[in-house]
Amino acid sequence: MAFSRYLIILALVTGCILPSGVQALWPIPTTLETGMTTLKISPTFYFDVQIEGAPSDLHDAVTQSQYYLENDKLGRLVVGRGANDTTALANARTLSKLTLSLASGAAVEPISSEAIKPLGTRSEEYALIIPADGSAATLIANSTLGLYRGLTTFNQLFYYYRGVTYTLLAPISIKDTPAYPFRGLGLDTSRNYYPVSDILRTLDCDELGEAIQINTFHWHITDSQSFPLEVAQYPELAINGAYSPQEVYTASDVQYIVEYAAARGIDVMMEIDTPGHTAIIAATYPEYPVADFANEPPAGQLRFALPEVMNFTASLLTSVAKVLPSHYFSTGGDELNTNCYANDYLTEQQLNRTGMTLNGALDAFTQTTHGALIAQGKTPVVWEEMVLDWNITLSNETIVMIWISSADAAAVAGRGFRIIQAPSNYFYLDCGAGEWLGDDPTGNSWCDPFKTWSEAYTFDPLANLTEAQYELVLGGEQILWSEQSGPQNVDSIVWPRAASSAEIFWSGKQPTGAALNVTEALPRLHDVRYRMVQRGINAIPLQPQWCALRPDACDIYA
Amino acid sequence: MAFSRYLIILALVTGCILPSGVQALWPIPTTLETGMTTLKISPTFYFDVQIEGAPSDLHDAVTQSQYYLENDKLGRLVVGRGANDTTALANARTLSKLTLSLASGAAVEPISSEAIKPLGTRSEEYALIIPADGSAATLIANSTLGLYRGLTTFNQLFYYYRGVTYTLLAPISIKDTPAYPFRGLGLDTSRNYYPVSDILRTLDCDELGEAIQINTFHWHITDSQSFPLEVAQYPELAINGAYSPQEVYTASDVQYIVEYAAARGIDVMMEIDTPGHTAIIAATYPEYPVADFANEPPAGQLRFALPEVMNFTASLLTSVAKVLPSHYFSTGGDELNTNCYANDYLTEQQLNRTGMTLNGALDAFTQTTHGALIAQGKTPVVWEEMVLDWNITLSNETIVMIWISSADAAAVAGRGFRIIQAPSNYFYLDCGAGEWLGDDPTGNSWCDPFKTWSEAYTFDPLANLTEAQYELVLGGEQILWSEQSGPQNVDSIVWPRAASSAEIFWSGKQPTGAALNVTEALPRLHDVRYRMVQRGINAIPLQPQWCALRPDACDIYA
Repeated sequence: MAFSRYLIILALVTGCILPSGVQALWPIPTTLETGMTTLKISPTFYFDVQIEGAPSDLHDAVTQSQYYLENDKLGRLVVGRGANDTTALANARTLSKLTLSLASGAAVEPISSEAIKPLGTRSEEYALIIPADGSAATLIANSTLGLYRGLTTFNQLFYYYRGVTYTLLAPISIKDTPAYPFRGLGLDTSRNYYPVSDILRTLDCDELGEAIQINTFHWHITDSQSFPLEVAQYPELAINGAYSPQEVYTASDVQYIVEYAAARGIDVMMEIDTPGHTAIIAATYPEYPVADFANEPPAGQLRFALPEVMNFTASLLTSVAKVLPSHYFSTGGDELNTNCYANDYLTEQQLNRTGMTLNGALDAFTQTTHGALIAQGKTPVVWEEMVLDWNITLSNETIVMIWISSADAAAVAGRGFRIIQAPSNYFYLDCGAGEWLGDDPTGNSWCDPFKTWSEAYTFDPLANLTEAQYELVLGGEQILWSEQSGPQNVDSIVWPRAASSAEIFWSGKQPTGAALNVTEALPRLHDVRYRMVQRGINAIPLQPQWCALRPDACDIYA
Repeated sequence: MAFSRYLIILALVTGCILPSGVQALWPIPTTLETGMTTLKISPTFYFDVQIEGAPSDLHDAVTQSQYYLENDKLGRLVVGRGANDTTALANARTLSKLTLSLASGAAVEPISSEAIKPLGTRSEEYALIIPADGSAATLIANSTLGLYRGLTTFNQLFYYYRGVTYTLLAPISIKDTPAYPFRGLGLDTSRNYYPVSDILRTLDCDELGEAIQINTFHWHITDSQSFPLEVAQYPELAINGAYSPQEVYTASDVQYIVEYAAARGIDVMMEIDTPGHTAIIAATYPEYPVADFANEPPAGQLRFALPEVMNFTASLLTSVAKVLPSHYFSTGGDELNTNCYANDYLTEQQLNRTGMTLNGALDAFTQTTHGALIAQGKTPVVWEEMVLDWNITLSNETIVMIWISSADAAAVAGRGFRIIQAPSNYFYLDCGAGEWLGDDPTGNSWCDPFKTWSEAYTFDPLANLTEAQYELVLGGEQILWSEQSGPQNVDSIVWPRAASSAEIFWSGKQPTGAALNVTEALPRLHDVRYRMVQRGINAIPLQPQWCALRPDACDIYA
């Protein structure tokens, strides 16, 4: 019971659809050649790691890859789910091993070390060759991280039918390298809390687990509503600010998550949002935030003009950042609603005493807090308002996240800053679920409508930029704000939608050089989704299964 | 990172909020009196069933109620989650038993028999009294079904803190009876398949499980995309029409689901949608549907003018309906796109031969198929177009479901038919997730926007009707169409939103006589949601937990 706005003229398709050559792969590789020979995985298939002193996390990745090869058991998304492949399978050659090696001269480091190197210095490229004659497949890279990316791709190539794991596309030759160094997923764990197990599962989805080559977990860990992070130097913040003693990320939780992510090729970029989005700090330091005017309840933004608040914030950021291995740390900086300071006696008094403007005070605050992070070897990351709404001095190294609108990227690039694209009009996963504030029965979500996977997929990372500015775009991310989300829907609201940005920022374009295209992508994204479900992730269907089994049969003008 | 369109002026609320007198109950009872005395559940608490020959499903319901009483362990939704109740608990009296009895003269029948009686003849009312002095609580009803409703309410009254289960509101006196006899939940299991276990869990949510007094499961079991129902007389329909042999509801599955539902006070109203929404029948009977023009892919609508199609449909409906105990069966009838018949030779030929118009042929088809159902003792149920778009003769007993717009109820009532309210503009749970057809990256859902719980809650079942027509409204339902849903998100997309209609059609108004009000309702709905989560249902948060613990603090103009 749902009508489209158009009359659909469609013949009932009952036959078999031939697989497209790349139906399996997401993100689509930079270069890709496939054949039409069927090749089965041998019952004795193994991964042959030809690397002296291979790190344990590479061995773990191989074990995981072997597990998925044996347990994904994903039938091809065609009518019959592979029943028509039996003849081809009867005569097929078998593949007995995949050889993993590093290019000569490459240093042997753990995946977890490679994964947290500075952006632009990580080596993620790989070459994967699967001959049609049954001789050994080979995977070569310049780093263990590159091998990890290749394993991810290898797993996506195989389907299952009645005890046989196989591909129809041998020989396969892939050379692959990401278009952008930063490919993220953002999660807000303050508005509602997510148990550690849900975060770990989400990290699995990001990477080898679900194989979409995301490499950064942007963890918006605190906000005005709760402070679930245990900070060594300021334990009261979580004691007073977490929803309950059980809803805390302890120091060991954070360390475990960071290590778990790194072993899966993922850097954890944490965000402590300041000076706005800090109301809950008042539960410990009642004078630090001013509780009046804010962009969502509860109101509370730091009195950044006060020296004690500036010093506290710098010290807090230092305490959090110094135990994190990532080179990146976000201080937030969005949605500062300065109405709250206009009638604030303490702020007024301080500004009068020093002769500073509010802008000047924010400049001092930012330089102090960023200085503390830089002293810890971190590159500060901020939301776009810090550049566009304020006249403050930011280090040239500062990375700026676009969120209000994709149209704002050009202005930030015009100021010479590097950019992470997280525009709400394409990439916010929470939009479209209605107003969450109470007493507003017909209110819509502020960022209506819902961002479908396909709308997100049409995002152009370089729109409105000059060619000289292209290199400023580090990549981007989709992000889940959690006013109306929690562990109950994290899978279903994120997956498979968040795969859209993963492909935009890994692939950039199709192997043919053509632009990415939703119609070409949909069958592959169905594949991603069905594989996720096989792996226990509650990724939602994008269409009726009837459509998933018949590429293009449910296109709007099919 | 989400701004509202308004500036919110809010003080940081850190103190304790006193519970509202009815924070726990959903749907809110017809009459309700509460006190301010704390009462604990005794460690030896038991349900005392004082009914000779009590049926086994009542005993099962009592066992389930005892289980929830011991295992819900839901902390009160206030800051501290009950920590401020310790003083009151230290001195509280204990409640040792709840006595269940039937009113004198009431017949003793199983819940499962009472639950499937004709609408208007079921007895769902009950009276529940919980004294403050620790003497036995009493639950009295005219039927086991009424007792079941009362048990549901009883469970909602109790919270948990550190080993103690208690209420702060004794004495409690409730007399309760539903405002409308039909309170449903609809689920489409054709666009995507739901395993039986997911349906059973959804039935648990509806009733004692989650305690919102829904009494009908509207099962839209087949559609154009798949035919997952095993029909005794037509086994090929599922063999050829189910997505796979595993994605079938066998005869024993259906029987189990129907019995499981009935024991939980729920009638199963099945729908075999005809003559539209039937494309998949072509996989077995290629000539029966015409595959051209339809409102969504795959195109295919029955050639209802052909005698063999009419007879097949009547026989199919008979075969399905005769093994179902419900008095109600829906033949659908929505979205018939007659463009498909204009160029259809077989239809043209038949109309020419008989001199019938297309409308006349549909009239004959409907009378034949409905006649077959009536012969099985069923009351036919149809979608609104059968009344509003066609000039056909329907039995006066026919029940008509409103879906296109809430504005259409008046026209249907004007024709004298009884109504089930399922208007898409309030009650469709799938709206707002974007276009699901392919090749339309920026397309929105046809029934945008997302229907929030609060928008659904503002629905007025009697809007635009004359007082004389009020009695035609049997009730209503929220419904999930599954183009973009499956077992992965059934919990999160349905719950707690579908509680909105449950309260509209049970309570109708507040106990004070005032109209239902979203601001009053929100804290209680948070309670429903948190209790569902305690019971293992992935019901989503409606707001940040900060708001859930502080009623009204996140209202839009708070």
